[in-house]
Formats: sequence, C-alpha cells, structure tokens
Amino acid sequence: MVAFHCIQALRFPSRTHVSFPIGDYNRDSVIMKKQRGHLVFASADKKSDKELYLQSKVETLLDSIKWDEKGLAVGIAQNIDTGAILMQGFVNSDALATTISSQKATFYSRSRSALWTKGETSKNFINVHDIFLDCDRDSIIYLGKPDGPTCHTGSETCYYTSALDFLENKQVEGTKLASTTLYSLENTITQRNAKLALPQTGKPSWTKRLLLDHDLLCSKIREEADELCRTLEENEDNTRTVSEMGDVLYHAMVLMAVKGVKLEEVLEVLRKRFFQSGIEEKRSRSRGQAN
Amino acid sequence: MVAFHCIQALRFPSRTHVSFPIGDYNRDSVIMKKQRGHLVFASADKKSDKELYLQSKVETLLDSIKWDEKGLAVGIAQNIDTGAILMQGFVNSDALATTISSQKATFYSRSRSALWTKGETSKNFINVHDIFLDCDRDSIIYLGKPDGPTCHTGSETCYYTSALDFLENKQVEGTKLASTTLYSLENTITQRNAKLALPQTGKPSWTKRLLLDHDLLCSKIREEADELCRTLEENEDNTRTVSEMGDVLYHAMVLMAVKGVKLEEVLEVLRKRFFQSGIEEKRSRSRGQAN
Repeated sequence: MVAFHCIQALRFPSRTHVSFPIGDYNRDSVIMKKQRGHLVFASADKKSDKELYLQSKVETLLDSIKWDEKGLAVGIAQNIDTGAILMQGFVNSDALATTISSQKATFYSRSRSALWTKGETSKNFINVHDIFLDCDRDSIIYLGKPDGPTCHTGSETCYYTSALDFLENKQVEGTKLASTTLYSLENTITQRNAKLALPQTGKPSWTKRLLLDHDLLCSKIREEADELCRTLEENEDNTRTVSEMGDVLYHAMVLMAVKGVKLEEVLEVLRKRFFQSGIEEKRSRSRGQAN
Repeated sequence: MVAFHCIQALRFPSRTHVSFPIGDYNRDSVIMKKQRGHLVFASADKKSDKELYLQSKVETLLDSIKWDEKGLAVGIAQNIDTGAILMQGFVNSDALATTISSQKATFYSRSRSALWTKGETSKNFINVHDIFLDCDRDSIIYLGKPDGPTCHTGSETCYYTSALDFLENKQVEGTKLASTTLYSLENTITQRNAKLALPQTGKPSWTKRLLLDHDLLCSKIREEADELCRTLEENEDNTRTVSEMGDVLYHAMVLMAVKGVKLEEVLEVLRKRFFQSGIEEKRSRSRGQAN
C-alpha cells in the first residue's frame, strides 16, 4: 500500500507541461476518511481546498475506469520519445493511484497478488509523463521514459519475438524489436555501419557508400535540404515534399549513425526543448538566437 | 470461423519483406485432420511439403502462446509508421490464426463471444505487417497500417483521454491523442499554423515567424542542414549532432505544416522505399539517381 504522506506534492509545478504533476496520494486513506463522513488532510494549510479538489479529481478518475471482475484493466507502457511499446501488464486501482503518486509505472502482479513497480528491483523505472485511457475506459497507456531496458531479459522492450520471422524461419541478427518504420530504418543503417569493415563482393549499397564517404554524405544532406526547400519555394506538388523530406531524414540518419547518435536522443532533446519547459518554443536553437 | 480455402497463399512472396506473408489458414481444419491421424490439404501439388511445414509452424506458434484461463491473450494494434497505439483488445487462438490468414487485425469480442475483425463494419481495417509476442508469450502486438480512424468515435486511436488534462482540469482544443514526442511537436506546429490568421498581441513565436516568412524558413532549413553536416566535418561533439538534428527536424516539420504534409506520409514512403520492395536501398531518391 502507498504510504500516506503530506499531500503537499499534489500542487502542480507551474511550468511543467508534460511531466506528470501528481504527488503522494493514497486512495484508501481518502476512502477511509470519506466513510467517516468528512475528509481530513495531513496539512491543513492554505492549499487544502485546492488539494481537496485535486484529491477528489483523482478519485473520480479512478472510479471512471471500467475495472474487470478482478478489478483489473490492461496497462501498456509506451516510450514517450520513440513510441516503442515497452511492456504490458495489468493495473488495479491501487496500481494506478501509485503511478499517479510516484510517477513510476506500477502494475498489479497477478502471479504475486501484489503491486509491482517496474524497476523496483532492476532500478530501470519507467518515468510516467502522462496517462491515457481508451474510449472504453478499460485500457490504460503509461506514456513514459524508461531509465534502462524494460524487459527482465535485458532487452529494450518485451516484444522481441517476431511471428513473421518465426514463420519464415528467419535467422535474425541480434534482437529485432517490434520497431516502427523510423527505428527499423535506424536499425538497418546501424547494422550496415557495423559491417563496414567486413569484406564485400559486388557493388556497395548507397548506404555503405554514404557511410564510407563523408564528403558525399554531407553534400547529399545539403542537396536534399535544398530540394526540400525548393518544394515550397517553387510550389511543387506535396508528393515532392513527402519524398524530399524522406530523403532528408534518411541521409541525416546515416550521418547520425556515423556519429553514433540515436534518434531517441534527438527526440528527447526536442521534448525538453518544446514541452518540458512549459514554453512551447523556448529555444529552437541552442546557440542563443532569440526565438 | 475462417473458411478453409486452398492454402496456396501460404507461399511467401519472394520480394516482400515487411508485409505479412501468410495466406488462408484454418486452425480447426488442421486440428480436425490431425485428430484423424494425418494431414490432408486441399491441393496436393508440388508445394504440399512446404505448405505442410508452414502449416505446422503456424500451429507451433499458436500453441506457444500462454493463453489465459479463458483462452485469451492481450492484443495491441500499433501503427507501423507512427508507433501510435491504435486500440487494444483480446485475442484467442482463432483470432490470431485469422489475423495471420487475413492480414487484418482480428480480436475476440468478449461481450459478443465472437471473432471480430476491426473494420468489418467501418471498413477501417488494420492491415497487419508483422505480429510480435512478448517475453511471457501472453501479450501480442499487431504492427500494422490502419485504413482510417481506428476508434468507433472517429478518433484516429482509442486513446484520446489524458489523465493529466483531466486532473489539471485542462480544456484541450480538438482531440489530444496519446502522442509521442514527434507527433506532439507536429500537432503543436499544425495548431499554430491553423491560428495564423487570428489576431495576436505581443511578439510572435519563432514557429509563427517561420510559418509566415517562407524565405526565413527555407534559409533556416539550409542553415541547420549545414550545421548538422559541420558536426561531422569538424568532428564536433555528439551533443552538437543531437541538437542540430533536432533543429533540422523541427524546421523541416514547419515546412511540412506549411505544405500540409504529415510525417506519417513521409514514413510510409520510407517504409515502402526501404522495406516493402525487399531491396533495402532500392532508390534513395525518386529522381532517378542510381543508388
């Protein structure tokens, strides 16, 4: 059960947009006190009205979930930057209250009949930034940032078994996660980069040529950026914009592979720049230009 | 139940990488025939050995799932391009077999006690490209491309209720989906673009200035692409590459908003270019340059 601390942390940080603002909260304590017909808070300072209001909002939220006959709903943890589905578990009312309180993705372990905060053993917590409910109110997304690999096997996510690969009897190098397009492309480029030193017969692929020839790579990035701009300047068809943006992304991702930079790092920077500061376009550039 | 057609479609298309290759398949038919001690297929042509092998692989896959006491596992449909979690339902053995067979995300409706293919009424199917199992084998991702909005409400996904917004009592314009960083940024820019004509007091944001001044926007895109290249050419620190790539992405996304182009379209093009052709770098450019 959640320890009932002073609920001071229920105050919202004024400049936080994405990070989850709810602090220590205990559902049972509230229910217990409600049953006595009144609500008493640990600290009865000036903010108690606001805190009382927030407490009741959390109550309302928990009561709005369509818990199944076992008091559970499906809980899915998703990486806020990459969109990767990290793991799926089940959530009961206490688990959701604890997640709201601790901002760490917490589930109900059906095998152990106990709350389980992902990371309590491994320290690879999932830091929850927002929680989404589905239209039926029986499925919950914890949108968060993992501290490290989520799976107990050490894999980044728990979904590393492809039915397609199994059915095709395909041998896959390393772990193939359930990756969406951008990360499949990143993975392809990274693998190509890792094999640069291996002997090869036949004509090298375009990616390999770019990885080996940095002058070519940079000239292509500049050229593709120029072509993207020209789709606007010369009022070209939208399909040209789509295609040129694809070219910009691909070539820039080859450069990232050369530098050993991951897309997730870029997205984390964008998130902090645009959302976590609470000021939408706080700084679009880090070199000091006014935005 | 699935109709048992000739299993000819079980052959793998030779050049398809991402699209799911399994054709008509019926588990019950196989089981039934197995119980008679032998397997008979509708067409006993040259491929029957291969087909028999594939059929048994599908069997093995279905048998490897840790179905719960009701014969169900959790099924999550995810957009292969954007990573958006579209919906979550439950899957039984027939539903998974049908998804493998039809390549349309199929679930088991607990309320109707029947198979349910998403889109069978709305025609907004989810075209499944791969299926992933989690480490416990009791949770399944259908990685696919939706034909249209997934939610019965007309929303792109079923997850449009933010607990954070509810607790903060925040009024949100339009639908706010459970978006990851890139799509939150796209949404922010798109909203800013939609409000360009509204009167504004105070200094315009950087995004608004870019949206209004296309010369400025294009000069920034070229400048940021150049700066990204210089992090490689001048061997700058990786944090510079991360930051400059963020700048390239953001400014290019402003251009996309001006042109009315969505990131999902770009990713779809990249997917088809790099994965669906079966040739990794078939064409990195659409203007005819050899790759």
